Amino acid sequence: MEKIKLSLIIRVTLFLLTFSSVVCGQDVSSNAVRKTNNQIVKSLVSPEIQSDNKITFRLYAPNSDSVSLIGDWKSEGEARVHLVKDETGLWSATIGPLKPEVYGYTFNVDGVTVIDPSNPLIKRNVKKNTSLLIVSGDESDLYSVKDVPHGTLSKVWYESPSLKLTRRMYVYTPPGYEKNTKKKYPVLYLLHGSGGDEDAWTQQGKAPDILDNLIALGKAKSMIVVMTNGNAKQAAEYGFAPVTPKPEVVVPDAPRVYEAGPFEASLVKDVVPYIENHYRVLKDKNSRAIAGLSMGGAQTHAG
Amino acid sequence: MEKIKLSLIIRVTLFLLTFSSVVCGQDVSSNAVRKTNNQIVKSLVSPEIQSDNKITFRLYAPNSDSVSLIGDWKSEGEARVHLVKDETGLWSATIGPLKPEVYGYTFNVDGVTVIDPSNPLIKRNVKKNTSLLIVSGDESDLYSVKDVPHGTLSKVWYESPSLKLTRRMYVYTPPGYEKNTKKKYPVLYLLHGSGGDEDAWTQQGKAPDILDNLIALGKAKSMIVVMTNGNAKQAAEYGFAPVTPKPEVVVPDAPRVYEAGPFEASLVKDVVPYIENHYRVLKDKNSRAIAGLSMGGAQTHAG
Repeated sequence: MEKIKLSLIIRVTLFLLTFSSVVCGQDVSSNAVRKTNNQIVKSLVSPEIQSDNKITFRLYAPNSDSVSLIGDWKSEGEARVHLVKDETGLWSATIGPLKPEVYGYTFNVDGVTVIDPSNPLIKRNVKKNTSLLIVSGDESDLYSVKDVPHGTLSKVWYESPSLKLTRRMYVYTPPGYEKNTKKKYPVLYLLHGSGGDEDAWTQQGKAPDILDNLIALGKAKSMIVVMTNGNAKQAAEYGFAPVTPKPEVVVPDAPRVYEAGPFEASLVKDVVPYIENHYRVLKDKNSRAIAGLSMGGAQTHAG
Repeated sequence: MEKIKLSLIIRVTLFLLTFSSVVCGQDVSSNAVRKTNNQIVKSLVSPEIQSDNKITFRLYAPNSDSVSLIGDWKSEGEARVHLVKDETGLWSATIGPLKPEVYGYTFNVDGVTVIDPSNPLIKRNVKKNTSLLIVSGDESDLYSVKDVPHGTLSKVWYESPSLKLTRRMYVYTPPGYEKNTKKKYPVLYLLHGSGGDEDAWTQQGKAPDILDNLIALGKAKSMIVVMTNGNAKQAAEYGFAPVTPKPEVVVPDAPRVYEAGPFEASLVKDVVPYIENHYRVLKDKNSRAIAGLSMGGAQTHAG
């Protein structure tokens, strides 16, 4: 009897030990898997720009069936690129070499369009975010932040009686503006394209960086650059206009070639006087310029 | 023979007609499916804030097996929420009501963490982007952009001989600063927390909006607020510092409680003199304040 009892105890103990080791083993191993996943995501580099300007994109998606990406490098080859999954669940694709330029791209994971979770830099176009990729080199040199004197970029609110709004604009004052307190500067009014806003020339167009670099190279005069919001019904960029109880749906004005509308009137009546009253500005005709992209180009004619 | 031939021709024709209608039918219907998908994505609203402050999140992901979201509303309930898929492939979940506040959240699609593709607003924390949700109401009233006079926010570059860098800081000048050209203002030096940068108090902390609102309510004096980058090795926010051939990996300085380091020295030697030389500033002790969050709080003691 005692022998049997002992044998039973031993067998039960062994069973429990085995059982607990299986349970604990599972727990430890699933924690380990989770840890490994987190480590993979944290150490993952995407996009990786290689020395020859080939670009490797990576996404850790072990449970996904299809990952592709689409970028605005049309002239450089296929916009859509299919990533390939390795045995750990890491998807990757290498493209290029791409010519030096600023690009936007998004991933498509099983049909869902998302930005690259490993890339903190964003290129926003109206209400759509894409991931930002800057390939450095001669052609993109002017819109990189370089070790040159930098101007000041200010987000300024001004009254626009013409549009019955308090509105936001960006004002770039060149390097030295704060120091040379007697000097007056020429002004460029720089208008964005359809769908853009007062942030577009800075965020997408890299205008302040280009100006810093051109001025440093002696290729542009030191100037003030005023970047307005060309959508007559908008006070400011989406998310930065005053919150009203029932926000109006804002539709950007359609381009009106050679026909002055409320925005053009406000530029002349509200913006130019504000700038000339608040900044050290040369007020003669030869020191005042206007330029615009797309819709902004049309507005320069209309204005 | 002729009858047979005719029958054959008819049958071949019928076959070809059937075949082509099948092929064309497939094409038309897959185009229709694609169009419907695009329409669903374009018309999709997420997050949708209902009148009772319940929030509905939506993601169109017909090919995904699992969609959840995680948000920083810990005190308001479970951070992780599982979305449910309908027959069209649209996932959704409704949570709350949430108390008025600024929240960040991300989706998890089959294990991949992404921001909400339908939400253009982003809340960036160091190098991680999350989607931004602002629930309006009394408690969040101060950090909404309201129809009150707005100050100017400027991104200013200054020389820091102490740190051997040209660095960027944000300077908030209060409403009326440009108009009241004789008036001098008190200054608050506002320091960010560990992992932040000169953008943190504006992007995450909504400091300029809070100041606009407090000043409008008469609850804060009109003041200049200087928001520096507290990481002694950084010239500016990631992506906005000068591009060098081999960028140094930047590690934010650890908090040094009661021990002045290079950042604190640069604040006293470089930042304060720059501000006092370039802005209309009250220079007495009672008109100069310093405050900080977390690491920034430690730096105020050390400074």
